[in-house]
Amino acid sequence: MADPGRLRVEGAVRAALSRLPAAVRAAPPVVACSGGADSLALLLATRALRPEACAVIVDHGLQEGSAERSAELAATLRGRGIAAEVRTVVVGADGGPEAAARQARYAALAAARPSADSPVLLGHTLDDQAETVLLGLGRGSGARSIAGMREWTAPWLRPLLGVRRADTRAACADLVPWEDPHNADPRFTRVRLRHEVLPLLEAALGGGVAGALARTAAQLREDDEALTAWADRVRAEAAEGSALRASVLAAVPAAVRRRVLRDWLAAAGAPAPTDAHLRAADALVAEWRGQGGPRLPGGLDVVRRDGRLTVQGAI
Amino acid sequence: MADPGRLRVEGAVRAALSRLPAAVRAAPPVVACSGGADSLALLLATRALRPEACAVIVDHGLQEGSAERSAELAATLRGRGIAAEVRTVVVGADGGPEAAARQARYAALAAARPSADSPVLLGHTLDDQAETVLLGLGRGSGARSIAGMREWTAPWLRPLLGVRRADTRAACADLVPWEDPHNADPRFTRVRLRHEVLPLLEAALGGGVAGALARTAAQLREDDEALTAWADRVRAEAAEGSALRASVLAAVPAAVRRRVLRDWLAAAGAPAPTDAHLRAADALVAEWRGQGGPRLPGGLDVVRRDGRLTVQGAI
Repeated sequence: MADPGRLRVEGAVRAALSRLPAAVRAAPPVVACSGGADSLALLLATRALRPEACAVIVDHGLQEGSAERSAELAATLRGRGIAAEVRTVVVGADGGPEAAARQARYAALAAARPSADSPVLLGHTLDDQAETVLLGLGRGSGARSIAGMREWTAPWLRPLLGVRRADTRAACADLVPWEDPHNADPRFTRVRLRHEVLPLLEAALGGGVAGALARTAAQLREDDEALTAWADRVRAEAAEGSALRASVLAAVPAAVRRRVLRDWLAAAGAPAPTDAHLRAADALVAEWRGQGGPRLPGGLDVVRRDGRLTVQGAI
Repeated sequence: MADPGRLRVEGAVRAALSRLPAAVRAAPPVVACSGGADSLALLLATRALRPEACAVIVDHGLQEGSAERSAELAATLRGRGIAAEVRTVVVGADGGPEAAARQARYAALAAARPSADSPVLLGHTLDDQAETVLLGLGRGSGARSIAGMREWTAPWLRPLLGVRRADTRAACADLVPWEDPHNADPRFTRVRLRHEVLPLLEAALGGGVAGALARTAAQLREDDEALTAWADRVRAEAAEGSALRASVLAAVPAAVRRRVLRDWLAAAGAPAPTDAHLRAADALVAEWRGQGGPRLPGGLDVVRRDGRLTVQGAI
């Protein structure tokens, strides 16, 4: 009898592949494989459905012996008839070690696709999603920061976002997953969330937290998509050259105004306004009494004149 | 020189009172006073602005000596010229000890108002708001469950949702706040969140978590208000007797459909559908292929026939 974990992984991969756009579904898929349980289970399930799928192993060169380990993993996979290649990357320093490694890895995976339509399958699970939501909570920038990862953003497909990590362990069959020592290193924020914060939160709230975080993420993503589409329409209607007509903004709810203002400021060269900046800019619409607007990083000022908002100053 | 904490508390109370509807602003306010730092600081700041404000102390009768403690607190306040009365309540058991005590307390406070327009001021701080967001995360029901407490929901006014607990301690002047032993009892979920989870989350994420949670709550509340108003319009447009026309729902985003379906199901006698129920009901609109709909608690079935959704079965 098949293991229930394996059935859940296979069912999730089948469903995710079926939801892809037709051209992507027809292209040979790439599976990102670290050798950990999540990506091994993903690889086996994908191969069962799509024998032409190939594995790409990214060697970050950050740990002693990573080149040998990557070559061994590729050989093991080839021994099972799975096409596998190693891509070696150079990790920079931008944005910290985790962000730099991620950026290098994603670039290598995208470059390894056999066709421009090929999707890259990633092994993120429901547990990873829960950790991502908690990470986003610390940023405090609303739905967008806690909406978590999406199942599909071309070319990335994450079929396992509804699958528990325990199920991927069970679905590796006789392949022995590699336990990345980084996954136990408390210098990484995600590791502390996984091993310290989430278990404590589970204990305090009585269980079910990872699933609850993932469900919340899915709903907030839908909320954000609906409000972003609304904001796009309003921004088009309010635009007058590079200015925004305040009367158009005043007619819509605060949640929509905030998104219009954020995207408009990004287009004007102020890409990451704080909550306080956005509220001060919004006050020029919602609580207008002739006041000045916020000064943004880079010396940009938001001002209201003749019923129009503009961004002024050095760019 | 005035303490900065006291200035922050007073500024927050002044701003919150100024945002009230005119009739409420004109009525004598009631301040709920437990004797803890948050409510003492709130009471002193409110009295400074509105000398006619009175304190209401609710005696839950749950702890040894609570009657004496309540009477002493009232006497202390009266000694300072502050009108204060004790209301004794009987706490039931519905929904657990915390929920039952809250329900009894809120009923007593509402009944203690000198006028039907009087607001009841509550001392919830930014730290309480952060705890409320974390509690909601464990429910996993999207924006509504993690949107936290509102500043104003008649007759309740929470002026301190942007003020840190540390500031209220500083704002008690020479009044000695009472430390409720329940606030250190780890049998209460909120206490574990406050003393265990939040500090660990702060340590893992590098600080600023309480503020980030409160900002996120404020934004999600605005998101939910905008989408709920949109859903109310769609529901009115889709309604045909007690049925909903699927074609109207199909034209709006998933986040709006979810809210329409949730409120429609509540009106039909199914007040708390799960995420899975709502997704199955939504599939009758978004992925219609002749399938049956979800069976809800109470034996209710959601069905689609002739392009209309109805709820059938025992009520």
